[in-house]
Amino acid sequence: MSDYSIAVIPGDGIGPAVTSASEETVAAVADRFGFSVETTAFDWGTERYLDRGAMMPDDGLDRLAEFDAVFLGAVGHPDVPDHVTLHGLLLPIRKGFDQYICKRPNVLFDGIESPLRGYEGGDIDFVVYRENTEGEYADIGGREHAGFDHETAVQSALFTWRGTERIVRAAFEAATERAGTLTSVTKSNAQAHSMVFWDDVVAEVGEEYPEVSVERILVDAAAMDLIRRPDEFDVLVASNLFGDVLTDVGAQVTGSMGLAPSGNIHPGEAYPSMFEPVHGSAPDIVGEGVANPLAAVLSWSMLFEDLGEDDAAAALWNAVADQLADASAPRTPDLGGDAGTEAVVADLRD
Amino acid sequence: MSDYSIAVIPGDGIGPAVTSASEETVAAVADRFGFSVETTAFDWGTERYLDRGAMMPDDGLDRLAEFDAVFLGAVGHPDVPDHVTLHGLLLPIRKGFDQYICKRPNVLFDGIESPLRGYEGGDIDFVVYRENTEGEYADIGGREHAGFDHETAVQSALFTWRGTERIVRAAFEAATERAGTLTSVTKSNAQAHSMVFWDDVVAEVGEEYPEVSVERILVDAAAMDLIRRPDEFDVLVASNLFGDVLTDVGAQVTGSMGLAPSGNIHPGEAYPSMFEPVHGSAPDIVGEGVANPLAAVLSWSMLFEDLGEDDAAAALWNAVADQLADASAPRTPDLGGDAGTEAVVADLRD
Ligand SMILES: CC(C)[C@H](C(=O)O)[C@@H](O)C(=O)O
Ligand SMILES: CC(C)[C@H](C(=O)O)[C@@H](O)C(=O)O
Repeated sequence: MSDYSIAVIPGDGIGPAVTSASEETVAAVADRFGFSVETTAFDWGTERYLDRGAMMPDDGLDRLAEFDAVFLGAVGHPDVPDHVTLHGLLLPIRKGFDQYICKRPNVLFDGIESPLRGYEGGDIDFVVYRENTEGEYADIGGREHAGFDHETAVQSALFTWRGTERIVRAAFEAATERAGTLTSVTKSNAQAHSMVFWDDVVAEVGEEYPEVSVERILVDAAAMDLIRRPDEFDVLVASNLFGDVLTDVGAQVTGSMGLAPSGNIHPGEAYPSMFEPVHGSAPDIVGEGVANPLAAVLSWSMLFEDLGEDDAAAALWNAVADQLADASAPRTPDLGGDAGTEAVVADLRD
Repeated sequence: MSDYSIAVIPGDGIGPAVTSASEETVAAVADRFGFSVETTAFDWGTERYLDRGAMMPDDGLDRLAEFDAVFLGAVGHPDVPDHVTLHGLLLPIRKGFDQYICKRPNVLFDGIESPLRGYEGGDIDFVVYRENTEGEYADIGGREHAGFDHETAVQSALFTWRGTERIVRAAFEAATERAGTLTSVTKSNAQAHSMVFWDDVVAEVGEEYPEVSVERILVDAAAMDLIRRPDEFDVLVASNLFGDVLTDVGAQVTGSMGLAPSGNIHPGEAYPSMFEPVHGSAPDIVGEGVANPLAAVLSWSMLFEDLGEDDAAAALWNAVADQLADASAPRTPDLGGDAGTEAVVADLRD
């Protein structure tokens, strides 16, 4: 029997609520499939920052490195600027553990109504492979001439061949296992330095995957088409920023941010991967007991898959899908119901 | 009686069709309001590039500079990479004439069905003020180590205080004339160099507009919220890239790319402003006679407004709105009808 040790960072806002709710479900499923999950909680986040000046300790990454995977609830706090909280916790883990694949499935589950007319549960099912360590999120830039009329800021996006090639390859691999089509999102018409480079990488890697048909699309058209024809997408690959925007559009058209899971994946043994719901800390509903725990549960499913526990991953995923398909099951308010977080996970366990 | 001379660049694909169709309407309206519009056509575009190696002549900008305004149909051609066509025509005009305001109204007209459930004609009406001369579209960057594993591309976004301040100010001015709320779109959590700078500009300019209430939103959340609650937006201000993506989302949720006009505006007399439909050259429907001319007509309305011919601008805008509200009027296929370009403008003239 395998024993996995998982680092859990509940984080800010509704993070702790969705984390603890989802953990209950997870333990039961692990047990059923003959393995155990030992979680270690880290109280890192904005409370710690406000108390002690740092979101996590200096040796934070070293401490996480021991674990088989990391689960993160949410980060972000109304009292502290986002660039402080995110650069203090989420982004350093993604970068420090070289989690270069941000994998985000977008599924319109049976029983869920899309905000788009004409789409029913089951109609939308695509996955975004988002580059997660460089691109437009590179911490390169600065400001000069502060306080003068000619003050200027520069923010540089960095694309390495290796960094681009590996996310593009991961997306091609995914396409071979799915419907065999890959949509590469760029903005080559306006950002000729970075995005033509990206196109070149896609063309070169694509030669190794003659069976995958590749579509190129501009990010503005992609955002539009995720509203106009979301059912036609299968695998998308995009830069860090473009992936960020498009996965939020994807979460929205598939019915709720409360159902969107994600994995920040470093394939291989060198570092743990990190799984987190796409939603934020939602300060507006903290303490009301109504946060939707399902994005967290689905993120655990992705975590199990990463551990190689495919059956448990599928069981967890299907439990969520079955619950959503059941019109009489409890739902949180974001899905039009009036149930609380606990009622949803209690029903899931049954 | 004023006489205006307008440079007209029909451009590529469906550009010529929507341009000539819209011109018919325009002449009649001008006549009715006691002014005349003399148009001079320039055959610049991809055909010219394929023939003679350049999208426009070397002195292209000088020749346009004489005119009171420029009307552009569309640019882009399947046989030539977009970064060639756009950097050869559209982007040099925007930058060379310092057209720093890209103004894009997004209106769900009466009679138009949004792809979003629950929204009816009249429910959505916001305008995006997009920075149009710098930001992520700055032509700064390059590639090194070509052909080696460590090949790297850099693309730098440039934000000047002046460049940011003037678009932000234009948006605040617009907000004072509309509902008094301004939404500033950033990505300050991940792009701390440029976007915190942007936030600082918004805060400083905002001090001069205490009557305007300012909301800050991250670009990913904005894309989501334009789907989730598009009726709540009034004036948005965004960088060049963010504005590009969000206006395509806006065009989509308001029913059709075929209805989205835009102005590339240089306020003041130094340079002409340029008006163009947001849609592209649509190579897939070229020659079929079904391109929707209404985005072009609405762009002429914005052009008239820019000339100070507010009554004619309103007449043109209202003619489109009235036609759309009339279920028996002809519509192009993108709006669910089966009429052609000519039938739509013929009906508009009546
Ligand atoms: C919180 C923020 C830095 C983050 C991102 O932009 O990556 C979030 O939006 C996400 O998508 O995970
Ligand atoms: C064609 C392209 C360069 C252009 C842009 O990105 O500005 C277009 O998408 C637009 O929105 O006008």
